[in-house]
Amino acid sequence: MSGRVLLTGATGFVGRHAVGPLLARGFEVHAATRGTAATPADGVRWHAGVDLLDPGAGAALVRRVAPTHLLHFAWFVEHGAFWQSPENLRWVGASLDLLRAFAESGGRRAVISGTCAEYEWGGGECDERLTPERPATLYGASKLALTRMADAYGRVAGVSFATGRLFLLYGPHETPRRLVPSVVRALLDGEEARCTHGRQLRDFLHVADAADAFVALLASDVEGPVNIASGAPVRLRDVVTTIAEEIGRPDLVRLGAVTPPAGDPDALTANVARLRDEVGWRPRVELRQGLADTIRWWADAQSGAARGVA
Amino acid sequence: MSGRVLLTGATGFVGRHAVGPLLARGFEVHAATRGTAATPADGVRWHAGVDLLDPGAGAALVRRVAPTHLLHFAWFVEHGAFWQSPENLRWVGASLDLLRAFAESGGRRAVISGTCAEYEWGGGECDERLTPERPATLYGASKLALTRMADAYGRVAGVSFATGRLFLLYGPHETPRRLVPSVVRALLDGEEARCTHGRQLRDFLHVADAADAFVALLASDVEGPVNIASGAPVRLRDVVTTIAEEIGRPDLVRLGAVTPPAGDPDALTANVARLRDEVGWRPRVELRQGLADTIRWWADAQSGAARGVA
Repeated sequence: MSGRVLLTGATGFVGRHAVGPLLARGFEVHAATRGTAATPADGVRWHAGVDLLDPGAGAALVRRVAPTHLLHFAWFVEHGAFWQSPENLRWVGASLDLLRAFAESGGRRAVISGTCAEYEWGGGECDERLTPERPATLYGASKLALTRMADAYGRVAGVSFATGRLFLLYGPHETPRRLVPSVVRALLDGEEARCTHGRQLRDFLHVADAADAFVALLASDVEGPVNIASGAPVRLRDVVTTIAEEIGRPDLVRLGAVTPPAGDPDALTANVARLRDEVGWRPRVELRQGLADTIRWWADAQSGAARGVA
Repeated sequence: MSGRVLLTGATGFVGRHAVGPLLARGFEVHAATRGTAATPADGVRWHAGVDLLDPGAGAALVRRVAPTHLLHFAWFVEHGAFWQSPENLRWVGASLDLLRAFAESGGRRAVISGTCAEYEWGGGECDERLTPERPATLYGASKLALTRMADAYGRVAGVSFATGRLFLLYGPHETPRRLVPSVVRALLDGEEARCTHGRQLRDFLHVADAADAFVALLASDVEGPVNIASGAPVRLRDVVTTIAEEIGRPDLVRLGAVTPPAGDPDALTANVARLRDEVGWRPRVELRQGLADTIRWWADAQSGAARGVA
């Protein structure tokens, strides 16, 4: 037994993929969600209907679970809105409450979900030790504030602490309006996929790999910020083209039809030396295979929806 | 009328000295304190017994007051303990709640009380634009997190925001165990004042000047961090010697009797160009005069205590 882990955001995009790897590493899993519990599984105890924004909810949950480990994914993630929403302020406060309760109940190791938006963008490859931490958004500022405070608090309270910084993800259960799902769904429906020029260089990681990397980080004693990424930059147009090839509809791709959003950097990629060499983790899902699986998942979801069972 | 200001920590060391300057600049003052209200004054409405750590208390206060301006001093300030206390986490959350409520109720301008501990120490003079923001304590990390988040949130919410960064203060109502009061009280009692070598270079500002500078900053449109300091560095031994001369007991000063605490920097001083040139504020209380006034205040307090009326 590696310990007893409290997993927050356990039905979210990344969190739901963390349950399996946690069980595989021998953790007793306490999975918390604001919504309803997922399908029961051996070794997983669900704590449903827990809204960490309710005053005292996080502390009460920690008292019930008495976790040795904390893997904290819960946050405000509404597509588009999350970048500048004041909900970020509430999540900083709720996360600090949770961390304090965790430390005070004897917790030993905590990992929170951070973001590449904690870095200053525009310099290309983000390096945990070299890239300036100068977020351009309230979301980035909030995650950075939490990273810095958890680090300082961890030293005082004797809790080993790390932040996993996510770059671009893709895979099952992604918010439909994001790049990969929107292209996949358009092409599956026989509609045009209108995209930007697609020359932007990005790091894409399959969400199952991302969750597995978080669990590896949690099980390690590596502290501070750690990029969670593939380390294999691709251009957006190559992602779109691969999807189109897999679906067999390259004729529907319209690169250059949309203007990139203001502030969209040419390159936003990750140095993964810490993840690879210190945590000892490497990605397993190759991009083309991961995209093919994701397309199949959306095709199943859409046909399920068409049959009225999704 | 300059506006309606909500002043938090209004009976604290700095906050209590801010009421007069706020009135002098034409603000309608709403003074909040966790404790009991100070003596009533024209133009001041007191909100006593308000604990901003109670969930919803800050938002309720803001709804009652509907302030245009916010001057936020309230924090956990227990001498010694405040540097690494988990209470700092709660104050970050409570301050974010207060800021959000302030913005959402139409507030326009907010200033919070920050600290020189937001900077990396060891480089001597702290400059808002050049000195790395790398706090060594949980207190510094918490105030910096609040500074950064309030700045990011202010941009989104349309609130003009600044942090006043305090260095060393002295004056009436200071915590008795800090340097100036402890030396003053020892010498007034005819006891030895045991000190470190005293070669440390520091910035000392009279608390009435500090409060006046905060009010000037609040009334300005200067944004971001602004050092609140005299800009006239002195060595600690010169402060101690001046006190001893004013009291007439230089024979009782024991420089070098105490080892400085770990991490005590040789120099911790402030560049005050922003305060002087952008805010347009200069200190009024000269150090020797300010120390003489402070000695008189402690002598009155002690004789009052001896008579049982303090």
